[in-house]
Amino acid sequence: MRLGLNKFLSPFRTIVVSYVVAMFFFSLLLFLPFVTQEGTSVSYSEALFTSVSAVSVTGLTVINVSETFNWIGIVILALAIQLGGIGVMTLGTFVWMVLGRKIPLSQRMLIMVDQNQISFSGLVKLMRGILGVAIAIELIGALILGTYYLNYFDTAFEAYYQGTFSALAAFTNAGFDITGQSLVPFVDDYFVQLVHILLIFSGAVGFPVLMEIKEYFSSKNPHFRFSLFTKIAVSTYFIVFAIGGAGLWLIERTEFYDGMPWHQQLFFSMFNSATARSGGLSTMDMNELTLASLLLMSGLMIIGASPSSVGGGIRTTTLAVMFLTIRSFALGRSDVKVFGREIHPEDKQKAFIVLSVFAVGLFASVIMISAFEGSGDFALMAIIFETSSAFGTVGLSMGITPDLSQASQITLMILMLIGRVGLVAFLFAIRAEEKKTHYRYPTERIIIG
Amino acid sequence: MRLGLNKFLSPFRTIVVSYVVAMFFFSLLLFLPFVTQEGTSVSYSEALFTSVSAVSVTGLTVINVSETFNWIGIVILALAIQLGGIGVMTLGTFVWMVLGRKIPLSQRMLIMVDQNQISFSGLVKLMRGILGVAIAIELIGALILGTYYLNYFDTAFEAYYQGTFSALAAFTNAGFDITGQSLVPFVDDYFVQLVHILLIFSGAVGFPVLMEIKEYFSSKNPHFRFSLFTKIAVSTYFIVFAIGGAGLWLIERTEFYDGMPWHQQLFFSMFNSATARSGGLSTMDMNELTLASLLLMSGLMIIGASPSSVGGGIRTTTLAVMFLTIRSFALGRSDVKVFGREIHPEDKQKAFIVLSVFAVGLFASVIMISAFEGSGDFALMAIIFETSSAFGTVGLSMGITPDLSQASQITLMILMLIGRVGLVAFLFAIRAEEKKTHYRYPTERIIIG
Ligand SMILES: [K+]
Ligand SMILES: [K+]
Repeated sequence: MRLGLNKFLSPFRTIVVSYVVAMFFFSLLLFLPFVTQEGTSVSYSEALFTSVSAVSVTGLTVINVSETFNWIGIVILALAIQLGGIGVMTLGTFVWMVLGRKIPLSQRMLIMVDQNQISFSGLVKLMRGILGVAIAIELIGALILGTYYLNYFDTAFEAYYQGTFSALAAFTNAGFDITGQSLVPFVDDYFVQLVHILLIFSGAVGFPVLMEIKEYFSSKNPHFRFSLFTKIAVSTYFIVFAIGGAGLWLIERTEFYDGMPWHQQLFFSMFNSATARSGGLSTMDMNELTLASLLLMSGLMIIGASPSSVGGGIRTTTLAVMFLTIRSFALGRSDVKVFGREIHPEDKQKAFIVLSVFAVGLFASVIMISAFEGSGDFALMAIIFETSSAFGTVGLSMGITPDLSQASQITLMILMLIGRVGLVAFLFAIRAEEKKTHYRYPTERIIIG
Repeated sequence: MRLGLNKFLSPFRTIVVSYVVAMFFFSLLLFLPFVTQEGTSVSYSEALFTSVSAVSVTGLTVINVSETFNWIGIVILALAIQLGGIGVMTLGTFVWMVLGRKIPLSQRMLIMVDQNQISFSGLVKLMRGILGVAIAIELIGALILGTYYLNYFDTAFEAYYQGTFSALAAFTNAGFDITGQSLVPFVDDYFVQLVHILLIFSGAVGFPVLMEIKEYFSSKNPHFRFSLFTKIAVSTYFIVFAIGGAGLWLIERTEFYDGMPWHQQLFFSMFNSATARSGGLSTMDMNELTLASLLLMSGLMIIGASPSSVGGGIRTTTLAVMFLTIRSFALGRSDVKVFGREIHPEDKQKAFIVLSVFAVGLFASVIMISAFEGSGDFALMAIIFETSSAFGTVGLSMGITPDLSQASQITLMILMLIGRVGLVAFLFAIRAEEKKTHYRYPTERIIIG
């Protein structure tokens, strides 16, 4: 903005550019010779893929992170995840706040866009709140996991090092691990899994939801009510979580789950349904699942988390508006009502656009990767799985990503970038010009995309 | 309606019920002992699948039609195709017209709905026109193909028998064949392929388009202009046809097409792109195509033909409204304009609903069939291909349909029924009650879904 590029750099474009700059910046840091372990090194394309995956809080990798980077590399990775997870704009503005600068309106608008907020009011408060809540949750998670990991690791340092990275990765839904095999070592430790599920939820349910819950418990305002966004986002998030878990159980009960005790079946179903919605950590090898489950997992990855969260996908509110619109059509109504409010026509339009662009983008990417790889080398299921994982910034993998061609890996990087920016923001970024439209319906706005 | 079921049988429900009745009716006829060749017989489930496929003009089969049925069975099949292709309601009403009965308004509304028309005016004329044009095109096709087939078959009867069935199957986009191997015997006969492509186009481009072209050439009205529907439907139909053909060529030029002369590459690309849009006939074994092409073919099957045609899919106008909406958003506009007109908000909503329901239905069906079949027996590509083919009423096959379980075959039958009825009509059929909505924008209506 200081370079006089104001005209080109609309708020949305600035966000896209900021993510891209952060991705290249961290790729250079991860390419430094002293961040890898003795005897290992990374190529620039490996460093770039790792950086894009970290800044977009995805978790897909072309290298084994824990066997490649030393502690300096891991700290750089953690910083990239934190920056990507909590928002390039939020952190950047926080730095300026700390330096005592007054936040200009254009800057506040950027945060608004990055966090997909639609009102200026209380923006600085919101941003401070987000950072505060995020860091508080991460610290509590690190403390609980680190202390508990004393049972698993030889030194306290190693336990808290692992616990801190794990809490960070879980809350930011980053999907990275430094165990070398995700959460597979904790497949029988339900406590560890529950803590991770709660951290994944906290990051993915949406920052405005966290803020409203905080306000609900701390507010003296007797008229406090949850926003339509919070009601839709939370209910959709958990309905899909329940359907996903139940679906996995129905499909696998006679297959992968055959012969397991009920609590193991329950935790595999719960953890997989939770992690597919952007988490990206896993307690099992995805290749153990049957075809139907892998498709269901892909569907959950595509749906993803809430807007204004660390997660990706078409987002919960898009899915909700889609089903509400179908329902209202089936009931013979032209307006779309829920929780005593009406959905704004513009939000319906956004949902339509997000769904369309996501469907076309996913389909085109799967075809392109299939074409890049030639026929027969990789199963279609694996290609669909990795593509959904990248576009939904999830990070779950059937293991083929390191073996894909450069062209396919570049495709996945682009999907991770767009997936993290969010389709609505991305479309606004490539939009020619903005024109305000005026509707006269009595509606309350929610966040889409 | 005569049974006093008026209240339950809304026009849309009547259409669904009529198709279902026709499907069961023809399944009984095809189950008769004297319609099969000596030494062969069909089970009732095979007869039902064949009937559903014929009435929905799909062309997926669980039996080899040419080796199973005698000429009586083939004639029954042809009648089922004709009834399904030109419309249960249109033909039914035509019979009543011939019997001299005055067509009541409720009846006219049924045709309107079945052919997805949105104006009452000129309805009877339209219906007569559709039947006249359809039968004229079929007769011309039968004459051309039959005469040309004198080169291929021993007797004139056999040549015209084959030519007539072929013209009927091509125009109704039914995808059935009585050669036993679709159009593979004509893989080097470009004349036969061109005639079939033209017949497929005629059936799939939309009846209103045919009527307007007829009017354009015969009308004395100097103010005649093509409707927005015709402009959108025709341009979308052929743009997708061109992109599909070019995409297939790009993918296969170093694979299946490797070493072929250019004209053979051209005709494989053209014929596959045309037939995937609902035709269902084929000049090659689909398993010869690479993964990327099979996905592209599935995409073409999902897009499908125009509304008010013999074809299926999400339909050309849905795709067009989707892209126009994205374009207008990218241009910063809130209204969606094309060809100097504005798309009606209700049509945007319908497109959104059709797209959503189709996506959810397809995805759920692929998961269900994967689950029914257990893991590993069939490749995901084949399951996606057959499911897209059934939902899009296309009839192309990778050959797995006969080997699927009963549950999967029932899923395909339901998809064929819904695909033929059309999603908009189907949703209206299950709709609780209808309420008119009034918009005040100056718009011209087009047909969706
Ligand atoms: K992730
Ligand atoms: K067909």
